[in-house]
Amino acid sequence: MKIGLLGCGTVGSALVSLLDQEGERLAYLLGEPLELGRILVRDPEKERSWPIPASLLTTQLSDVIDDAEIGLVVELLGPGEFALAAIRAALRAEKSVVTANKEILSTHFPELELAAEAANRDIFFEAAVAGGIPLIRALRVSLFGERLSRIVGIVNGTTNYILTKMQEEHLSLEVALGEAQQLGYAEADPSGDLSGRDAASKLAIIASIAFGSHVDVEDVKVDGIWGVTPSDVDFAARSGGVIKLLAQAERDADIPDAPIRVEVFPAIVMSTHPLASVRGSFNAVFVEGSAVGQLMFSGPGAGGLPTASAVLADVIDAVKNLRNSTRAPMRVTEGTHFVDDSTVEAVFALSMEVVDAPGVLAQVSEVFGQHGVSIARMEQDELGAELAHLVFLTHRTRLSAMKATIAGLAGLDVIARLHQILRVLE
Amino acid sequence: MKIGLLGCGTVGSALVSLLDQEGERLAYLLGEPLELGRILVRDPEKERSWPIPASLLTTQLSDVIDDAEIGLVVELLGPGEFALAAIRAALRAEKSVVTANKEILSTHFPELELAAEAANRDIFFEAAVAGGIPLIRALRVSLFGERLSRIVGIVNGTTNYILTKMQEEHLSLEVALGEAQQLGYAEADPSGDLSGRDAASKLAIIASIAFGSHVDVEDVKVDGIWGVTPSDVDFAARSGGVIKLLAQAERDADIPDAPIRVEVFPAIVMSTHPLASVRGSFNAVFVEGSAVGQLMFSGPGAGGLPTASAVLADVIDAVKNLRNSTRAPMRVTEGTHFVDDSTVEAVFALSMEVVDAPGVLAQVSEVFGQHGVSIARMEQDELGAELAHLVFLTHRTRLSAMKATIAGLAGLDVIARLHQILRVLE
Repeated sequence: MKIGLLGCGTVGSALVSLLDQEGERLAYLLGEPLELGRILVRDPEKERSWPIPASLLTTQLSDVIDDAEIGLVVELLGPGEFALAAIRAALRAEKSVVTANKEILSTHFPELELAAEAANRDIFFEAAVAGGIPLIRALRVSLFGERLSRIVGIVNGTTNYILTKMQEEHLSLEVALGEAQQLGYAEADPSGDLSGRDAASKLAIIASIAFGSHVDVEDVKVDGIWGVTPSDVDFAARSGGVIKLLAQAERDADIPDAPIRVEVFPAIVMSTHPLASVRGSFNAVFVEGSAVGQLMFSGPGAGGLPTASAVLADVIDAVKNLRNSTRAPMRVTEGTHFVDDSTVEAVFALSMEVVDAPGVLAQVSEVFGQHGVSIARMEQDELGAELAHLVFLTHRTRLSAMKATIAGLAGLDVIARLHQILRVLE
Repeated sequence: MKIGLLGCGTVGSALVSLLDQEGERLAYLLGEPLELGRILVRDPEKERSWPIPASLLTTQLSDVIDDAEIGLVVELLGPGEFALAAIRAALRAEKSVVTANKEILSTHFPELELAAEAANRDIFFEAAVAGGIPLIRALRVSLFGERLSRIVGIVNGTTNYILTKMQEEHLSLEVALGEAQQLGYAEADPSGDLSGRDAASKLAIIASIAFGSHVDVEDVKVDGIWGVTPSDVDFAARSGGVIKLLAQAERDADIPDAPIRVEVFPAIVMSTHPLASVRGSFNAVFVEGSAVGQLMFSGPGAGGLPTASAVLADVIDAVKNLRNSTRAPMRVTEGTHFVDDSTVEAVFALSMEVVDAPGVLAQVSEVFGQHGVSIARMEQDELGAELAHLVFLTHRTRLSAMKATIAGLAGLDVIARLHQILRVLE
């Protein structure tokens, strides 16, 4: 049984290097070799980080799909319709599929899982979420019997690298982003990371598996880190925390078929919380279950070899299942519905620049009061140029009330700038 | 297919409660019910935390082993020959086995794995190590293809609770132990925990799975926390760390069939290391692999429900395999040999009480020099009663040189008391 590989970029080349270097050992452990059949590439002439025999390369998808010796297809093509069509074709041809394609899974998971079930083949995607961390298999297998109530994590290494730099070196977002781009931690167009969209894709996949539901990336309420300023970072530090971009999925585990809440948002994570110590481009995911309690998984969120390691784990599992003519079961529950914002409650921090004049604080505070938002702590400092900087930390309150407050504040002439709202994770 | 349960203490009762409460949901997800056939107990009249129909209870092991409807035996009897005999009998009767028995696995794993293979059945033991953390399955499945070089973790919740108390509330070991006993975190006889023996059992199992080797608890070099004092805890804090009892398995991943080093020892863990933030009775395990890099898993290390959750995960996996007439493969490499102490290198901290007199420091320092141990930092403070307290932090040096130094120091009249040696984890 051979493996067909679609795409041979960073992760693909790393996978080929692993199969080459570890081939003998893996063949011994598995009792059969893991052999590459064909590799689909756009440009066979391109130089790669690992030497690949030219005879394996093809530019035709059909060379992979129609090859009867190929029982398993690894899809590493990146976003786009072609990758989706390739996965569909592989499953139709009764090949198991291993993919790292978060964009496709976060919108087409139900369809692809059904297609895999119909073909009696696996679709595995450990590498689509949190790089090398074996999270998906833990959720699918080890925690299969758990009623999960909450998954909250740092699943975007780029923003975590930027936020860590801002915090530890007192940099602005722009400077930290520039450094991340120079080091290859951020892409030339960082909008997918900074907007929270990348984290939302991963969260949709995590929530789908954790809750056995159909969560689409469009179901996720997303707020990115575009608006996080050094003064927010300082305020977080004075409050005993650090700013992190969190992806969170919640469901009341005690109510069957309870609505789901899926959100990506910047938060002040208090230093006593294990997620606070996750630095740089690392990822970490915190899981709460009815019986097991709280678990945390952390590790490299990206990178060629760690991601290829997750792909390889899927390949080994899929090969084992093919040999046994079986497939991995999915946890699928009833319909999926979502909590609307109005019921979300949390502690929030909101900072703003205001005109430094008598009566302004009273005017601002009144807006919080009008919407029933109670203030736990307030800080004021001078900014120069007749401006003052105000930070409000609320008591636990509804997100809807906070949004109404922000709308009210936006209407005040005395406010020069409203910063991004931050949630507090204790 | 029914489940036979051997032993119904804290974990057993929690498992019965899970099967009762989650039964309907699990039957739906699995496509078949998980039903208890018989439960072996010592005293059928004993009151239990979860009501159990009297008709299920038996005091005869043969009622479970000879029941043809029972395809899977869960062994929760605790240490002892009877449990070992029961596991052997279950495998001989071609039943899959799920066990939480670290004592038995850490001495009889090779024999039991061979017996399971001969019967074409599984022996699973997620709950034997690190409570609810799905570590064993991650090592067996997700990291099957990795060449692992190092596993280091906090796998004994009792000692971690005691060390956390000593650190955060400035208590002596005796007082912290007393509190742990009152709260049920430590047993009346705490020697298995404090001596490091419990951690060594778990480490033997972890190393066996991680390296595909035969590591017995007797192969583990063990040092416990009996000798850790408040002044050691203070010195760790001044050095920017905390004291933890670590279990560590290492092997050079680049050399086939390289020797293994397995050790349990108290260490100063620097606060930048993720293991430093593991508080109270939590467990955490740090894994280093050739491709994946560094991963960490943390969660509850003990407790009825978390442990029962790990047992349930094994039960579900074993039932799936029985249905598919398959079993989980083991990674087994060649022979196992061990590194001897003399090659172990680390940074060490050693403290002592000495006579407060001129020339003593020179005399003590000379012993370090005689054995080629270079000092990175030294602290001295008065203790009263004509005693001084000295702490030496070494540069990276061999454990054999440190042991020779300690033997040399023990021969000096000016030393009133040598404290326990601590390793430093950066």
